[in-house]
Amino acid sequence: MDISAVNALSYEDFVNIFGNVVEKCPLITAAVWTSRPFINLNALEATIDEFIDALPESGKEGILRCHPDLAGRDLHSGTLTRESREEQARAGMDALSSAEASRVARLNEEYKRRFGFPFVICARTTDKTRILRELSERCQNAREAEMARGIEEVKKICRLRLQGLVLSDAPNKL
Amino acid sequence: MDISAVNALSYEDFVNIFGNVVEKCPLITAAVWTSRPFINLNALEATIDEFIDALPESGKEGILRCHPDLAGRDLHSGTLTRESREEQARAGMDALSSAEASRVARLNEEYKRRFGFPFVICARTTDKTRILRELSERCQNAREAEMARGIEEVKKICRLRLQGLVLSDAPNKL
Repeated sequence: MDISAVNALSYEDFVNIFGNVVEKCPLITAAVWTSRPFINLNALEATIDEFIDALPESGKEGILRCHPDLAGRDLHSGTLTRESREEQARAGMDALSSAEASRVARLNEEYKRRFGFPFVICARTTDKTRILRELSERCQNAREAEMARGIEEVKKICRLRLQGLVLSDAPNKL
Repeated sequence: MDISAVNALSYEDFVNIFGNVVEKCPLITAAVWTSRPFINLNALEATIDEFIDALPESGKEGILRCHPDLAGRDLHSGTLTRESREEQARAGMDALSSAEASRVARLNEEYKRRFGFPFVICARTTDKTRILRELSERCQNAREAEMARGIEEVKKICRLRLQGLVLSDAPNKL
């Protein structure tokens, strides 16, 4: 799908296709439809980023709270969104040793208790070892820094999900 | 569940229970968790309303666009949320005559083409006859008026969903 096809979508098709580029926040996708046409994928991405940036702090926390734990309950019970499942699997989070799984569960709980939102990381641009290290290190950060960092990761995840949807057909057009 | 039980919920349980009080917008529920404790149900409702009011116009349109059509595709294919299914059924929208169904489908399309978001009405406080009349009348409104009206209906729906969740156990406590 190229950007002109994206711009031609009804809001219903737009939300069906792009509704989960920010995890479980179709409201954001549905909101940015107002700004079409987009001159390219970067413009669509920038509109999403600007919408997120303009939310009050509670709204940004709300976005983070819509994300599942890494290697958490949703992964084990099969209730992750398709996108999250693929991203967590690619980073090896579905194949932790029992010691690693216990450590991740303990650190996830510590992180959530400390900040009131979950640890969010763009799993597709990293791997299991670095995720475990970051989870441990980021638990020590100040709350404000972690909010900003979490939102930065949300935007990275969003960019890769958008690229997967908008550019995946590109080779057919060459 | 009373308000002290609500205030004791983790954000995960809070979002699991209240995540759909605004249709398909768990972001809003997850955001207002920041403002706990709530002194009563009205305070929780007011926090949600204020969050909605503070969104840019595109965000309010986004909320409306997360709503299904009345008696539309999601009703027929069984993909409505539980809350919407119950509300639409209670208003008789799952038992339209074929002439009524055609009329609703035509007016829904006209409404969406005109405004860029779907017709939203609190089905639980009305009935089929009045819904059909309103759908027809509201198609004639100015866009700005319909935006405001749609958001007003979203808040009514939210209030009733909240009351169903928070007060449903109340009689046991008397």
